[in-house]
Amino acid sequence: MSRIALIGAGRIGRIHARNAALHPRLELAAVVDPVEASAQALAAEWGAAVRTLEQVMADPGIAGVVVASSTDTHLDYSMQAIAAGKAVFCEKPIDQDLGRARSAAQALDGSRLLLAFNRRFDPNFRALKAKLDDGGIGGLESLQITSNDPAPPPPSYVAVSGGLFKDMAIHDFDMARWLLGEEPVEVYATGSCLVDPEIGRLGDVDTARTLLRTGSGRLCVISNSRRSGYGYDQRIEAYASGGMACADNVLESTVRLFNDDGSRGDRLQNFFLDRYARAYQAEMDHFADMLAGAPSAVGYADGVAALALAEAATQSMKSGAVVRL
Amino acid sequence: MSRIALIGAGRIGRIHARNAALHPRLELAAVVDPVEASAQALAAEWGAAVRTLEQVMADPGIAGVVVASSTDTHLDYSMQAIAAGKAVFCEKPIDQDLGRARSAAQALDGSRLLLAFNRRFDPNFRALKAKLDDGGIGGLESLQITSNDPAPPPPSYVAVSGGLFKDMAIHDFDMARWLLGEEPVEVYATGSCLVDPEIGRLGDVDTARTLLRTGSGRLCVISNSRRSGYGYDQRIEAYASGGMACADNVLESTVRLFNDDGSRGDRLQNFFLDRYARAYQAEMDHFADMLAGAPSAVGYADGVAALALAEAATQSMKSGAVVRL
Amino acid sequence: MSRIALIGAGRIGRIHARNAALHPRLELAAVVDPVEASAQALAAEWGAAVRTLEQVMADPGIAGVVVASSTDTHLDYSMQAIAAGKAVFCEKPIDQDLGRARSAAQALDGSRLLLAFNRRFDPNFRALKAKLDDGGIGGLESLQITSNDPAPPPPSYVAVSGGLFKDMAIHDFDMARWLLGEEPVEVYATGSCLVDPEIGRLGDVDTARTLLRTGSGRLCVISNSRRSGYGYDQRIEAYASGGMACADNVLESTVRLFNDDGSRGDRLQNFFLDRYARAYQAEMDHFADMLAGAPSAVGYADGVAALALAEAATQSMKSGAVVRL
Amino acid sequence: MSRIALIGAGRIGRIHARNAALHPRLELAAVVDPVEASAQALAAEWGAAVRTLEQVMADPGIAGVVVASSTDTHLDYSMQAIAAGKAVFCEKPIDQDLGRARSAAQALDGSRLLLAFNRRFDPNFRALKAKLDDGGIGGLESLQITSNDPAPPPPSYVAVSGGLFKDMAIHDFDMARWLLGEEPVEVYATGSCLVDPEIGRLGDVDTARTLLRTGSGRLCVISNSRRSGYGYDQRIEAYASGGMACADNVLESTVRLFNDDGSRGDRLQNFFLDRYARAYQAEMDHFADMLAGAPSAVGYADGVAALALAEAATQSMKSGAVVRL
Repeated sequence: MSRIALIGAGRIGRIHARNAALHPRLELAAVVDPVEASAQALAAEWGAAVRTLEQVMADPGIAGVVVASSTDTHLDYSMQAIAAGKAVFCEKPIDQDLGRARSAAQALDGSRLLLAFNRRFDPNFRALKAKLDDGGIGGLESLQITSNDPAPPPPSYVAVSGGLFKDMAIHDFDMARWLLGEEPVEVYATGSCLVDPEIGRLGDVDTARTLLRTGSGRLCVISNSRRSGYGYDQRIEAYASGGMACADNVLESTVRLFNDDGSRGDRLQNFFLDRYARAYQAEMDHFADMLAGAPSAVGYADGVAALALAEAATQSMKSGAVVRL
Repeated sequence: MSRIALIGAGRIGRIHARNAALHPRLELAAVVDPVEASAQALAAEWGAAVRTLEQVMADPGIAGVVVASSTDTHLDYSMQAIAAGKAVFCEKPIDQDLGRARSAAQALDGSRLLLAFNRRFDPNFRALKAKLDDGGIGGLESLQITSNDPAPPPPSYVAVSGGLFKDMAIHDFDMARWLLGEEPVEVYATGSCLVDPEIGRLGDVDTARTLLRTGSGRLCVISNSRRSGYGYDQRIEAYASGGMACADNVLESTVRLFNDDGSRGDRLQNFFLDRYARAYQAEMDHFADMLAGAPSAVGYADGVAALALAEAATQSMKSGAVVRL
Repeated sequence: MSRIALIGAGRIGRIHARNAALHPRLELAAVVDPVEASAQALAAEWGAAVRTLEQVMADPGIAGVVVASSTDTHLDYSMQAIAAGKAVFCEKPIDQDLGRARSAAQALDGSRLLLAFNRRFDPNFRALKAKLDDGGIGGLESLQITSNDPAPPPPSYVAVSGGLFKDMAIHDFDMARWLLGEEPVEVYATGSCLVDPEIGRLGDVDTARTLLRTGSGRLCVISNSRRSGYGYDQRIEAYASGGMACADNVLESTVRLFNDDGSRGDRLQNFFLDRYARAYQAEMDHFADMLAGAPSAVGYADGVAALALAEAATQSMKSGAVVRL
Repeated sequence: MSRIALIGAGRIGRIHARNAALHPRLELAAVVDPVEASAQALAAEWGAAVRTLEQVMADPGIAGVVVASSTDTHLDYSMQAIAAGKAVFCEKPIDQDLGRARSAAQALDGSRLLLAFNRRFDPNFRALKAKLDDGGIGGLESLQITSNDPAPPPPSYVAVSGGLFKDMAIHDFDMARWLLGEEPVEVYATGSCLVDPEIGRLGDVDTARTLLRTGSGRLCVISNSRRSGYGYDQRIEAYASGGMACADNVLESTVRLFNDDGSRGDRLQNFFLDRYARAYQAEMDHFADMLAGAPSAVGYADGVAALALAEAATQSMKSGAVVRL
């Protein structure tokens, strides 16, 4: 059993706490949160202790740290934990500022850090990747990534989110890099405010399309909306020389109704914590593997690369011009 | 061009008239119908002549006859036409009375008669049969045939229909024989009147299940309802040693809608003349092949065998016992 | 936290142990198994104690007992536990012998016993039931239950299984009763040995069709095979006055491939412990509710009624006649 | 019956000949083609006469002309026929040269000319449009148009095709305008040569993505490939404020196979003359309506607008910059 600490007892922290506590090879030993009551409630739920950041970093019995605190602390806490000899499971994004993120390269590059791009651990996207890797449909040529939220976040969140590309599309940039197997060299993005005018007043968009082009000419379209009107829409189509593979949405049940209006299928699995429940578990399982010596599947460099694409998309949308990387 | 005559200018007759008139190798030369106005209207539409039955039978220039008149005339007109040296395309059923149907064996067995079990010519069921025949899923073991009408016929039709098994399930008995490749030896059927009490008062049922068993132990379930509540439901599932093959319903379009209630697919193609439009054309094409010398794919013996199963099912339902053939 | 004991550390017992141990309102306190090593391994895995049956029954701190031992002990252990004032979660079937099962009526009828018909807790079948109950497609008229195993069990299992109807179709009889909302009054069953001749030599069948008819004329077909050739096939179609509702199979992923042969969807979720993983969890959750005072959703009488249908189907198949209940 | 003439007896001309000849309100009176043998064969097949262009234009008994000759003659023949008082059914594109196309505005704008964007008559895309128009999913916000050919054309065709955007994507630009109900004001396009290097040597691409933006901020992605690897892939997704509607591909049959590798659906309807057979018929039906006085649903201005988008996309791809219209 590896003993780990959780920093941050918010929504995503509570998911990781549960997955760590129920994991056969992990023990959730400590919870850190500036809000005392949150830390205490979560620690009590899973039989962990409440600790300060300093205590966790100094405790040689803590082998790993989950960084699920606010985005502006991700880099700092990760570097502290790595310096203290611990493995790190750091929530995305690595930071909102590309320059600052890059400045941590010496400390974090190649380190034992797992950057929490949870979609890489989703069974459907993994199955898609496996189909591409096994070569059955030939060489990959282009991607269509569709990623729409059920409903827009509150304006207060939008204001500090870093914008649609860094906050929401960051996952899709990571998916693009992971599946393309090659870095994009051109980014063109455009967006509109069609859903909530308040988002526009905050200088952001709620509907966007991004077009990536790699050095060898592979193309990738990323479609994003803050509000789908039909649930949490998470799909990928991969076009290859010998065919196409796609991963479709997950439904709440397999029930279909037929009447004289046609057929009806069930809703999309709607809440991201449900849709990606298995991904979060698999991610924690991978962290347990890392604590047993395995290399990280998604690291600091992946976080920086996705952020660089988000930055380029933001810049392209603002300038109306293609950004070359 | 082979010149053919149509006997019967009713609903199904008009379909056959159109398909014959538009067929590149057929010429619709004559229309016969006791209702003068019907015959004249249909003949005018396709540039054919109105003729009497006697004229058609005596005309050596008529190579084939389509018998689409009332059921009680099918046997008689078919025998007349065969005796006159013509090929025959006879609507189903061959007759409502099994004894009478069998008595025509000497005249009709092995003859150039096409019995119009149109579903054998449906592209979906043909594709299903081809999949079974190519052996890719192993040996056939059992069938599930689902055949539901959109809405019950009027009581006046039910009263003279011969009952659900002879009128409606007769197609399914033919599908069963065609796909099983083996004759059923046991029939058990049960039915209820759940849709329209008037049907019950006429001594018929509107909902039925029939279970067939072949000599080698293959099983077939036939599910029928006079009213599906969701359109013309025509499906077949074939279970084999290496998997399953099914033919699903045909939809009016490929459009799907997604909203927060789930997804919605279009209606089933609902009217049998639409659903089986291509089957009727393919059937006429086969008749053109017969006129060019090809043997009939579905003949008198198939009509009698399906009728015998319908008779057995009727008897089983009435007696509550299995009927062994 | 309610403390519970598990009797039987076999395959299904280990599932229940895990679900109880991870349940927020339950504590797995004790494990009983005649095989010492099995009991000890499972108890150690979840921090429970190894106990004898007598210790468990006598322990007033044990509020509930999960009976997952061999079928011939289900009735006896359940009655002991009920007599000792404990709630019982008893694996299906209640017994293989209908007379013996019925003789326990005085002790078990109306008691706090949960009979483990896990499919009632499957999210897909529950969603189907909810759609029927909300009346949106009108009154239920008939059912098609398809239930095929991926592969036949070994002959040694078949020999003591009680036969296909009691061992395998018992779940389907329960689904039929649950969804029909009315007791069948007629049972006709037929079967064949098409998969494994050894099963035939043991006097059993591997392929069967059962036709149920209720007092009001509702019809239900149950289709069973010991080997589907394409995975664990668990589907239900419910036909109602205003349409149809169906629950389809669960797939391993949502990935589809398209090439010039057509499209390919992923495999069915194949192993019953995977397919019904959520059902087993929900079942344990219901047991926790019972320990907090809720009435059992599936009880002794349901176990007896399903067994009576299995007995009737067995008898019908052997006699070739309809059995009236 | 309106008498019409066909100019051009090539592949698409033969389709229109058949549809006109079999149409109940049209008579195919004349066929014109510089290749005498082609004209004669087609005229003979449908009982039409072989005529010269001059004869057709001068014949007052010819009410309508189908222009299915080579692209460089479309504008000229259309203008001659309009000047001669005839209705015109003109194949797409209106011309390859935008300036030349625009110069015909005085003669053709508002005239009785049907430009043959056949996809507007496809039952699936019409059903999609109807769903958007009936308002059930709210206001349209963005489109995803996927349009991939089964296999690339021969280099000889590519060389004179005008490039992927004018030759292939022209249909998609028309679909975009038709569904968006608003003109795009920005066009960004990028493309690669991933399928056939010969296409690249000819200065064209075989894989492209185009991003359109309308004045109100609606977004449209068009995805094109000259070779899909899985058939003729023709799909549209329309995202609206209250949900999404999509039109999917048409399959060769409804048959699906299930085995232990998963399920398999049939191939896409692959050849464009099959896939759009009903669209071509509906288009001819609309021409018959026009001959009876109805206004054209797709006219000269639509042809010019689509060509302008194709021109802009070509220019954007070459320059690497957004083109503003």
